[in-house]
Amino acid sequence: MNSVTKPTITAFKTSPDRGQGLARDMRVRWALEEVGQPYDVRLVTFAEMKQPAHRALHPFGQIPTYEEGDLVLFESGGIVLHIAQTRAGLLPDDPDARARAVTWMFASLSTVEQSIVELQFVMFTERDKSWYEERLAMVHDRIRARLGELSDRLGDADWLDGAFSAADLMMASVLLRLRGHGLLDEYPNLAAYVARAEARPAYQRAFAEQLAVFKAASLAAS
Amino acid sequence: MNSVTKPTITAFKTSPDRGQGLARDMRVRWALEEVGQPYDVRLVTFAEMKQPAHRALHPFGQIPTYEEGDLVLFESGGIVLHIAQTRAGLLPDDPDARARAVTWMFASLSTVEQSIVELQFVMFTERDKSWYEERLAMVHDRIRARLGELSDRLGDADWLDGAFSAADLMMASVLLRLRGHGLLDEYPNLAAYVARAEARPAYQRAFAEQLAVFKAASLAAS
Repeated sequence: MNSVTKPTITAFKTSPDRGQGLARDMRVRWALEEVGQPYDVRLVTFAEMKQPAHRALHPFGQIPTYEEGDLVLFESGGIVLHIAQTRAGLLPDDPDARARAVTWMFASLSTVEQSIVELQFVMFTERDKSWYEERLAMVHDRIRARLGELSDRLGDADWLDGAFSAADLMMASVLLRLRGHGLLDEYPNLAAYVARAEARPAYQRAFAEQLAVFKAASLAAS
Repeated sequence: MNSVTKPTITAFKTSPDRGQGLARDMRVRWALEEVGQPYDVRLVTFAEMKQPAHRALHPFGQIPTYEEGDLVLFESGGIVLHIAQTRAGLLPDDPDARARAVTWMFASLSTVEQSIVELQFVMFTERDKSWYEERLAMVHDRIRARLGELSDRLGDADWLDGAFSAADLMMASVLLRLRGHGLLDEYPNLAAYVARAEARPAYQRAFAEQLAVFKAASLAAS
């Protein structure tokens, strides 16, 4: 460990996913739970995220951020890798295996998530366009191409490369965003992979924490 | 250094960008030049990239890959970070500054590159659709939003966070993909940032190497 400071993360005051655990603070909460690191949460509204005070922490005005003493990080990939590199439990000890796990983290967040983020843009900004159905089908096919390749690589293994690592935490988090779109179920080994990830006690604790935030916000608003 | 093995990377036998240096092997070449690590290149055709032998190295059938003794990596982010962590010259020594550089690498490849990759999909797969112009404008605006935020953060600094690092190598590589779209020039400090990156001797050497591959392929085909 390079620090014993209790970190503070930011999360949505009212998550747009209504507590489904798809916001990116979930990835950081899950990582902190896996390594047994207690943390504080500061909730921010959409308006606050775009203000200079938050942008000083996160140049792109998003969540999550991560503060630990003088260190400020943004971007879930960078935060999770920092947690994994400074606490035991999320990366293998062997240097080659560590490098492979990091490569899978990048693969999750760029190669695999690219079209999944695009799917959200289609849903949110193109739903009333004349081309909506055709574009949706095109993006679905791009996602299927990646899922097919990932499914082939995973085969009947439990995790991407040996024991569960930050690579699986990130890949499962990305794949979870497909829930409700029906695509994941076309690849039974990937659906089972995500279910295995969700069954982890650390995931369950993190999920409960973010759900409690959403429920509290709903109560306060009602 | 955790290895003195000379690495081998893969690159396109005939780059679709006609030697403009926008293919992802360029990022790895540049990193290797920055740290002074000699390397070998194995060229692959599009057909070969989709064959089992290449997919064993790269599950998504792309370039670049990186082989160093028994270690096999894919995904430019994972490869560049491995090079930066095992050779001096691309990451600061201070642990907090290193973590921030890594966060910027993730930001480059997911938050900033997402819409830039999407722009390429629009250009390549939607050019003859009725909605092409409207979609192009939408994606341009998404890119502008990110560029504006990045421009605000960079201000009049030379690099993202102190001295040049793997973060700048990756961010500049991502921004370079906008060349020819006119968007970068709307943000003079970002255009100057990319020009500073391109002026680095290591970039120039890497660029010349990939251009030589393209020219040799063109000669062989003529």
